[in-house]
Amino acid sequence: MTVIDDLIEALGTETVLTGEAIGERYRSDASTTGKSLPLAVLRPSNTEQVSLALAICDRHRQPVVPQGGLTGLAGGANARGGDIAISLERMSGVEDVDTAAGTMTVLAGTPLEVAQLVAETAGFLLPIDLGARGSCQIGGNLSTNAGGIRVIRHGVTRDNVLGLEAVLADGTVLSSLNRMVKNNTGYDLRQLFIGSEGTLGIITRCVLRLRPLPAARLTALCAIDSYTHVVSLLKSAQRELAGLSAFEAMWENYFRFNAEALNLTFFDKATPFIVIIEQDANGSDEDKERFETFLGKTFEDGLVTDALIAQSEKEARAFWSVREGHLMDQLLPGLINLDVSLPIGQLDDFAGDCEKALFARFPAAHVSFFGHVGDSNLHVAVWIESPSEHDLHEIDAIAYDLVRKYKGSISAEHGIGTLKRDFLDHSRSQAEIGVMRRIKTALDPNGIMNPGKVIPLRS
Amino acid sequence: MTVIDDLIEALGTETVLTGEAIGERYRSDASTTGKSLPLAVLRPSNTEQVSLALAICDRHRQPVVPQGGLTGLAGGANARGGDIAISLERMSGVEDVDTAAGTMTVLAGTPLEVAQLVAETAGFLLPIDLGARGSCQIGGNLSTNAGGIRVIRHGVTRDNVLGLEAVLADGTVLSSLNRMVKNNTGYDLRQLFIGSEGTLGIITRCVLRLRPLPAARLTALCAIDSYTHVVSLLKSAQRELAGLSAFEAMWENYFRFNAEALNLTFFDKATPFIVIIEQDANGSDEDKERFETFLGKTFEDGLVTDALIAQSEKEARAFWSVREGHLMDQLLPGLINLDVSLPIGQLDDFAGDCEKALFARFPAAHVSFFGHVGDSNLHVAVWIESPSEHDLHEIDAIAYDLVRKYKGSISAEHGIGTLKRDFLDHSRSQAEIGVMRRIKTALDPNGIMNPGKVIPLRS
Ligand SMILES: Cc1cc2nc3c(=O)[nH]c(=O)nc-3n(C[C@H](O)[C@H](O)[C@H](O)COP(=O)(O)OP(=O)(O)OC[C@H]3O[C@@H](n4cnc5c(N)ncnc54)[C@H](O)[C@@H]3O)c2cc1C
Ligand SMILES: Cc1cc2nc3c(=O)[nH]c(=O)nc-3n(C[C@H](O)[C@H](O)[C@H](O)COP(=O)(O)OP(=O)(O)OC[C@H]3O[C@@H](n4cnc5c(N)ncnc54)[C@H](O)[C@@H]3O)c2cc1C
Repeated sequence: MTVIDDLIEALGTETVLTGEAIGERYRSDASTTGKSLPLAVLRPSNTEQVSLALAICDRHRQPVVPQGGLTGLAGGANARGGDIAISLERMSGVEDVDTAAGTMTVLAGTPLEVAQLVAETAGFLLPIDLGARGSCQIGGNLSTNAGGIRVIRHGVTRDNVLGLEAVLADGTVLSSLNRMVKNNTGYDLRQLFIGSEGTLGIITRCVLRLRPLPAARLTALCAIDSYTHVVSLLKSAQRELAGLSAFEAMWENYFRFNAEALNLTFFDKATPFIVIIEQDANGSDEDKERFETFLGKTFEDGLVTDALIAQSEKEARAFWSVREGHLMDQLLPGLINLDVSLPIGQLDDFAGDCEKALFARFPAAHVSFFGHVGDSNLHVAVWIESPSEHDLHEIDAIAYDLVRKYKGSISAEHGIGTLKRDFLDHSRSQAEIGVMRRIKTALDPNGIMNPGKVIPLRS
Repeated sequence: MTVIDDLIEALGTETVLTGEAIGERYRSDASTTGKSLPLAVLRPSNTEQVSLALAICDRHRQPVVPQGGLTGLAGGANARGGDIAISLERMSGVEDVDTAAGTMTVLAGTPLEVAQLVAETAGFLLPIDLGARGSCQIGGNLSTNAGGIRVIRHGVTRDNVLGLEAVLADGTVLSSLNRMVKNNTGYDLRQLFIGSEGTLGIITRCVLRLRPLPAARLTALCAIDSYTHVVSLLKSAQRELAGLSAFEAMWENYFRFNAEALNLTFFDKATPFIVIIEQDANGSDEDKERFETFLGKTFEDGLVTDALIAQSEKEARAFWSVREGHLMDQLLPGLINLDVSLPIGQLDDFAGDCEKALFARFPAAHVSFFGHVGDSNLHVAVWIESPSEHDLHEIDAIAYDLVRKYKGSISAEHGIGTLKRDFLDHSRSQAEIGVMRRIKTALDPNGIMNPGKVIPLRS
């Protein structure tokens, strides 16, 4: 019997798609690493079926690739030729909200936005949030340790997961559905699966930590004359604004490009840095006054040269639309968005060096910078006309060589997948990669779980 | 050559203590699991010496036990007969404070209090804090994933470590000294070492995350008539007080015992629950008014029946002295302090069941409860007259059987060591323990790292 025969016998034809039955959507994630048809797509309905499927594949030494919402940007969910994809899409739903503990238990295939809405209905904030919320799945968020726009207040995905259930390559169901903030009973296995991009097992459900739902948000746009002042403003905001929920910086050319594209004018004259500060608030006038007082003081102290406070949701959205820069993607098709981390004090030095190095090789490049400064996360937007594969590789190499020099991270939030796999040694030592291999072998001795992803191939 | 000969040759006699030269302090941690003389005590001065020592021990299949400040409460740092202890005490000092990033790099043997003071001098709060701060070491805090009194605001130790350096059993130096909040480049090895109680390697340095230093703290003592209201008050406080930094509950008999012992009276009449609420504040009158308004509203809403706001540091200390209950330890010598976690909504149900079960077996027992409710952490203080070894085991068994029933954790913060090792399966499944074993073998194939701790022996 072939592996497909065994899978059909155990799970039924409805759960095992092959050939023509495999829709377009299973062929690629949101990266540009290429499309490919999986040998089959499995659509299990529950943990037991995931377990059966993996046990069969393991026996046949059949490689598998877990697929969530396929919004990943690193190629991690893409099948290589001959891989079987296991889609979590039918394992969707919130199983429980514990309002006393402030936790929710969610199936891995649940779209993030659905989980967010269920939390809100129960009076809570699910602090994981990102642009792809409508399509990405909770299991994918865990597997990539997604970042997003609430990190400065509530941390990355890793910080918001209390427990999880995962199935190992051999079909073992590992249930660590802890609901408690404190639990020191042996190794924290949960953390191993978070951020491992499907290479150690398939996450089937998890317990997430919920936070109080803020009644209102206060938003300001600040003009700042030096990077030193950006860092000082960050530190003041962290000290003075207990509910600080965003601190997003734009370097001048990123801000100008996007404000002009949107036909928006905010300040009389240009400044090198523009920062959005946002704070969770209770909706009272008092809260607003405190926010205004804080900004007034930063102006007196010379940290900001100008500042606007959004007087309506519409105004706040206008600030954010510049930051999101959707028109940039349209006006500069094929725009590359590098996602790196560096120690906070060095983001601007890196930006200067990176721009210089890119211009030296590509004098006509469009290079601009923005980032979650409070999270040490810098995005580099690079555009050149009709780049070849080789040009794209060179852009990566130029940026990541500099990241290595600054002891930074080549991936702040998007993960490694196949896209950055061969650069992993720019951020992790050979000893670290060696330990990753040892752990991978311990949990997946036959190497069937998403092979070729994250860990560099042996040369 | 014996292992001791090899060690002396590589490290010198000054670093290798044997026999008479081994002081009393290396024979036991702060648990009551028994004293024992290690075969030798190594006192390396740097990572290279730790690496040399482990490589030699691994070659000789010589078991080792890492020793930090020896304040652990689970027996994890105690040598078994024949073990060599490796003390980190000479690897002490803060190597770097990065004020822009808000991080510090610390050697593992640094006493917690020293690291806290260096952070404060630089204008930051190191959010790890516990009663043993004067003696415990940063490396011990990481290895036990210490909790303590700031968890509700800043998380457990795990949440405050950005990077670490560790030496594996074979001497490999694993340097993951990441300084960035976001870093998604492969498996999060750091989290494996945190909380693994020295069974996977020796932590030699780490990068810690610092927070803004609060200018002031506001403290209130609240009387509450039901556990449902305790949970509602917690939720209100989390929603309304952005700087909430403590939420500590005392059950009535714990409060009464300690208040009487200290000769302090706070309220006219007894209530079933007494809660300390504390908030970080900026020292302004405005902040104080807001805190008062919040408490006023909880009174109007019927959540609290009475409340006192500390008008001075001295008054705040009086509230805390009842909670800390030092006199209870003196008046009831041999008092047992069980440290468990349960879903927040069920702490009181558990307390009721636990008291009943203990009284059924030990009618004259003194049983009282207090806990970090916001962290799902309950402490059970149990005292019986002249307990035998068998009585002590029975008390554990009664409490931990109930913890299992409630799907709780037998160790919220103190860890497993040897004390709770044989109860590990009350909180973790056989599949989880199996995966722990696989990881242990992958990283320490000869089983020299702190054997006999955490993971149950195979029967
Ligand atoms: C418009 C847009 C905005 C984005 N914004 C952000 C952002 O702000 N921050 C950020 O961090 N990312 C962002 N991303 C990237 C992406 O959305 C995230 O990485 C997301 O977490 C991926 O979830 P997914 O369900 O789509 O996963 P997929 O793309 O399906 O898979 C991602 C990886 O996880 C594995 N995987 C998926 N599900 C499981 C499972 N159940 N068990 C084991 N492995 C699994 C896959 O094999 C793959 O390696 C953005 C993407 C887009 C398109
Ligand atoms: C008065 C008092 C109050 C306490 N309060 C709290 C509290 O509020 N919260 C809490 O969580 N705990 C508390 N504890 C327990 C204890 O202080 C903590 O567990 C502390 O983190 C242990 O640190 P240590 O350096 O003393 O470690 P040790 O006792 O020396 O060792 C603890 C464990 O870690 C291992 N270890 C130590 N250093 C290293 C290293 N560098 N590398 C690898 N492994 C290592 C040891 O082998 C052992 O298994 C308290 C203890 C006392 C005595």
